[in-house]
Amino acid sequence: MKISFLGLGVMGAPMARHLVHAGHDVTVYNRTPAKADAWVAAHGGRAAATPAAAADGADVVLACVGADADLRAVTLGPDGAFVAMAPGSLFVDHTTVSAAIARELADVGDRRGLLVLDAPVSGGQAGAENGALTIMCGGSEAAFAAASPVMQAYAKRMGHMGPAGAGQLTKMVNQLCIAGVLQGLSEGLALGRAAGLDLDAVVDVISKGAAQSWQMDNRAGTMARGQFDFGFAVDWMRKDLGLALDEARRLGVPLPLGALVDQFYADVQGMGGGRQDTSSLIRRLVR
Amino acid sequence: MKISFLGLGVMGAPMARHLVHAGHDVTVYNRTPAKADAWVAAHGGRAAATPAAAADGADVVLACVGADADLRAVTLGPDGAFVAMAPGSLFVDHTTVSAAIARELADVGDRRGLLVLDAPVSGGQAGAENGALTIMCGGSEAAFAAASPVMQAYAKRMGHMGPAGAGQLTKMVNQLCIAGVLQGLSEGLALGRAAGLDLDAVVDVISKGAAQSWQMDNRAGTMARGQFDFGFAVDWMRKDLGLALDEARRLGVPLPLGALVDQFYADVQGMGGGRQDTSSLIRRLVR
Repeated sequence: MKISFLGLGVMGAPMARHLVHAGHDVTVYNRTPAKADAWVAAHGGRAAATPAAAADGADVVLACVGADADLRAVTLGPDGAFVAMAPGSLFVDHTTVSAAIARELADVGDRRGLLVLDAPVSGGQAGAENGALTIMCGGSEAAFAAASPVMQAYAKRMGHMGPAGAGQLTKMVNQLCIAGVLQGLSEGLALGRAAGLDLDAVVDVISKGAAQSWQMDNRAGTMARGQFDFGFAVDWMRKDLGLALDEARRLGVPLPLGALVDQFYADVQGMGGGRQDTSSLIRRLVR
Repeated sequence: MKISFLGLGVMGAPMARHLVHAGHDVTVYNRTPAKADAWVAAHGGRAAATPAAAADGADVVLACVGADADLRAVTLGPDGAFVAMAPGSLFVDHTTVSAAIARELADVGDRRGLLVLDAPVSGGQAGAENGALTIMCGGSEAAFAAASPVMQAYAKRMGHMGPAGAGQLTKMVNQLCIAGVLQGLSEGLALGRAAGLDLDAVVDVISKGAAQSWQMDNRAGTMARGQFDFGFAVDWMRKDLGLALDEARRLGVPLPLGALVDQFYADVQGMGGGRQDTSSLIRRLVR
């Protein structure tokens, strides 16, 4: 299949690589062209100078860029993919963005006869590298059905969550849950540390019961040891929480914990931790 | 072994029953005597009129009462167990109380030649009924070694967390983790509901990744359906969070989430939900 991939960041680069390995004919675009050239040298395929050039003749165009403005530029911009995409072709966005832009792209796509799917992922860089991402999809049944066999190249799990925007909304739910888990875990570990407990022993005994979480299983040890230079960056988490807070304001849903943890992450950014894993939330409490 | 059990509430009654089934000679005490008589009629053993009478001649005295004041009354009060316990005998407290009273009982016990263990549990009423509790212990090695074979009658997991008070401190860590998990989950589900998502489908797709938690696996479904008449009561959670907040104040540890969620539970109490499961936190957000 002729596939175009827009955005070769820490997520996009390995996802596009999995598409090559799955046997697709892949053309890539990246805002910094040198990165696209390096990717092509390493993995094959072709590099294009603009999203439109990359999308020309493609059956499927996928994007994994930074945020709403980046996504708008590579899709609806003057050199954006949408000007070149043929009716019946499929656009899949893996970027975590607002539900509003997901719906806007779906609307524009509808008018032009394109299939459009919002498909943010979770699983982080490791999930992208290992082809083990969870993909939360919003869009028509036809778009989900067309995208599934392609995304299979790097997905562990895919869910069709509803119409356009539903993938993004599901990702927001995911991030709010993580925010709560991590702040609770941070406060618990901080109290345990101050009280002189052996944190590994504490986690061992409480991690089989009602306090258990993926973050406790996978991050409590590194939190106790002050190791944060890996994983999902605080800067990206703030972007995601910002999206959730905007959507909640629109819907009239109070998110007191989401708003508070977002501010706590601003503290962590102020401490120089913007690129550290989200579990660095504990740095505010244990120094 | 001659065992005395003080306090036949929803936790104590099934725990004492497991001790009878394990073959121990059990004498029970309960503040409301009719409850002790009913328990004896159902399970055997003997009822005593005071904690001291129950403890007289016992090798091991266990307690599972309400809070610090109740524990003080049944141990150090004029008719308390400590006046009757023989040197070398063991006192185990399963109540969730302050680390301070745990240390005080250990000190008094030391002076009288008693072994003392603070041993709060998690696993709730179901864990007590099924003999599948997690027990977090603080005290001497000798006290833990003496208590382990007895507690085995209703434990799934036991940890010796450190000196007197360490069991209680570990329980506080456990409850803070749960508070964070549940508020994050509540906000996530509330946003998802307001956005029109199918919450079961959302939980299905996000529960295999970084947002996963025991509460998500076991409570998200009932939260989505507004079912809260089971599980661990909000009134007890507020007691536990109060203990954690007091301890944190003493240690100089900030618990912004713990303090906030404690207040949110006060809201739930105000809505008449004091006896509902802790997952009823979502009621503030989804009505």
